Amino acid sequence: MERVYIGKTKDVYKQEDGNYLLQFKDDVTGEDGVFDPGANTVGLTIDGAGKAGLKLTKFFFEKLKDREIPTHYIDATIEEATMTVIPASIFGEGLEVICRYRAVGSFLRRYGKYAEEGQVLDGFVEVTLKDDERKDPPISEDALRMLGILTTEEYQVLKERTVQIADVVKEELAVKGIELYDIKLEFGKDSNNQIILIDEISGGNMRAYKDGEYIEPLKLQKIMIS
Amino acid sequence: MERVYIGKTKDVYKQEDGNYLLQFKDDVTGEDGVFDPGANTVGLTIDGAGKAGLKLTKFFFEKLKDREIPTHYIDATIEEATMTVIPASIFGEGLEVICRYRAVGSFLRRYGKYAEEGQVLDGFVEVTLKDDERKDPPISEDALRMLGILTTEEYQVLKERTVQIADVVKEELAVKGIELYDIKLEFGKDSNNQIILIDEISGGNMRAYKDGEYIEPLKLQKIMIS
Repeated sequence: MERVYIGKTKDVYKQEDGNYLLQFKDDVTGEDGVFDPGANTVGLTIDGAGKAGLKLTKFFFEKLKDREIPTHYIDATIEEATMTVIPASIFGEGLEVICRYRAVGSFLRRYGKYAEEGQVLDGFVEVTLKDDERKDPPISEDALRMLGILTTEEYQVLKERTVQIADVVKEELAVKGIELYDIKLEFGKDSNNQIILIDEISGGNMRAYKDGEYIEPLKLQKIMIS
Repeated sequence: MERVYIGKTKDVYKQEDGNYLLQFKDDVTGEDGVFDPGANTVGLTIDGAGKAGLKLTKFFFEKLKDREIPTHYIDATIEEATMTVIPASIFGEGLEVICRYRAVGSFLRRYGKYAEEGQVLDGFVEVTLKDDERKDPPISEDALRMLGILTTEEYQVLKERTVQIADVVKEELAVKGIELYDIKLEFGKDSNNQIILIDEISGGNMRAYKDGEYIEPLKLQKIMIS
């Protein structure tokens, strides 16, 4: 298998059958040794983080499959920390779609003049460009269209699907008494030009809280799958 | 008259008849002594900058009046560098609406991965919050609505009016062989809840170029009104 991409938290291999294998690593994003799902740098390495991320990803992607929400997921082998996925093309050089239920993180840093920390946001969706150099700038629907990254129709599908998926994750966390504050998702298009969820859904993609306390990704995995 | 506001480039006085008087100052925004219409700090003081800004503002507001585009403008006294305006309430704690015809400035800093410097943008509109502390963050239509700053209808009016006004400015500059790259406008609501253009339209609000050379605000005024 050929390694086609080395990511911050995952490497990607191309299989002979045309599908891809994602190798989850033990590196997590953060700054100065502190985990931060919004960070662009690998902040620390945690033994078992890869498998934990994959366990949660498998759990959520299978929940989405049950609800017939299209994703790139085929299957996962936890022992090897690998996931098999169908090919998908990304939008531009990559987008992140964020769904927010409470005002924290970069939202609060930008709009703190109008929002209190922790304020309920009711599934607010925003898109950011994957661009480490420019610190993943937020981008509007109009700019996405003008720059040829998304059509108006694609933006609408992306937004609706983001809320739909985030709501599933929120519900599943709620079963364990955990509250989802925000989550970032990535989308691509399959060979039929259908918009599908790609990448992963793990503790590293979201901020989850229990009784007002932030839950680290590894702990989240243990609470969710035990 | 009571001074009700001290601004970076203008002071505001309340008149006894309920209207307001804007006193244009010789301070212009910039950083390290270099003029930058996008800057949040007063960078330098230029003798005559206030009157020059007012001359251009008067010129453009009267053009808009001819076209029945609503603004807060009543009249101007160049010798005193003052402009009389009707009262208007601002949105939230103030917005700036930017119309871009070429990719420069903060647009390029954010979206340089997808746009070349100077690329034509065809009247692209974006809104930023007036918030010096948070460096005037751009904000989406969805976020403006969610935070109670603008309704969907108000956003649409704001966007349409911005393009309409920017197009007038662009046309007027073109008469003198000058090209408008971008312009920032401010809006408010009058006592009938009509959305009107407020603040000023001067060299300090826009980037104007002639034969590929940036034109300083004072020079722009001289070229436009001679």
